Amino acid sequence: MIADTPNPPYYAVIFTSARTAGDNGYQEMAELMVRLASEQDGFLGIESAREEIGITVSYWRDLASIQKWRDHVQHTVARNKGRSDWYSAYRTRIALVERDYGFVRDQTVGNNDKSKLDLQ
Amino acid sequence: MIADTPNPPYYAVIFTSARTAGDNGYQEMAELMVRLASEQDGFLGIESAREEIGITVSYWRDLASIQKWRDHVQHTVARNKGRSDWYSAYRTRIALVERDYGFVRDQTVGNNDKSKLDLQ
Repeated sequence: MIADTPNPPYYAVIFTSARTAGDNGYQEMAELMVRLASEQDGFLGIESAREEIGITVSYWRDLASIQKWRDHVQHTVARNKGRSDWYSAYRTRIALVERDYGFVRDQTVGNNDKSKLDLQ
Repeated sequence: MIADTPNPPYYAVIFTSARTAGDNGYQEMAELMVRLASEQDGFLGIESAREEIGITVSYWRDLASIQKWRDHVQHTVARNKGRSDWYSAYRTRIALVERDYGFVRDQTVGNNDKSKLDLQ
């Protein structure tokens, strides 16, 4: 699902990863993390896809809510397991979403009016 | 491939999409767009994966380079075709990457030292 985020500004955590071979409990933990993240204060949405690499983008109200989720004990356990077992490499990028706009077939939706799409 | 981006700050364009049925020339155009984008001034890297939804994150030096790529004639043709044929919905988010850090098996890499990971 494309996340139905509110008007910017808000934060995105872009997590890009390459997996090791085998499941080793990864899928179950990934689903648990999505469920837990979505219960956190400040969580706005999450999008995920995996082919050669996996990309998960989670959206948050502010840096404080990202930090609280980072320090969540079950998330910390999962992150350690990620480094020991599941990932051959990953990169995490923390980014301030300044504007967004969208398209839905038969309608155009956006949180910004057209003048703001000029990026100027 | 996980994009090998330089030290922040830089920009991310997070493009999340849902496809219509059938290829209809999509794959060929997608590959052309990646090739063209990577030739643009200010392009820093691109990451892409598709399952239920597709997520493509391209990285750019600044807003000016994003705007120039947005206005590129072949990109404009592709975008129009995206709305008429290929996508049932999409959302584009333009975000300033403020910090990043990474992990590669047997080594930890990052553009920020550990103190900066505290998000404070």
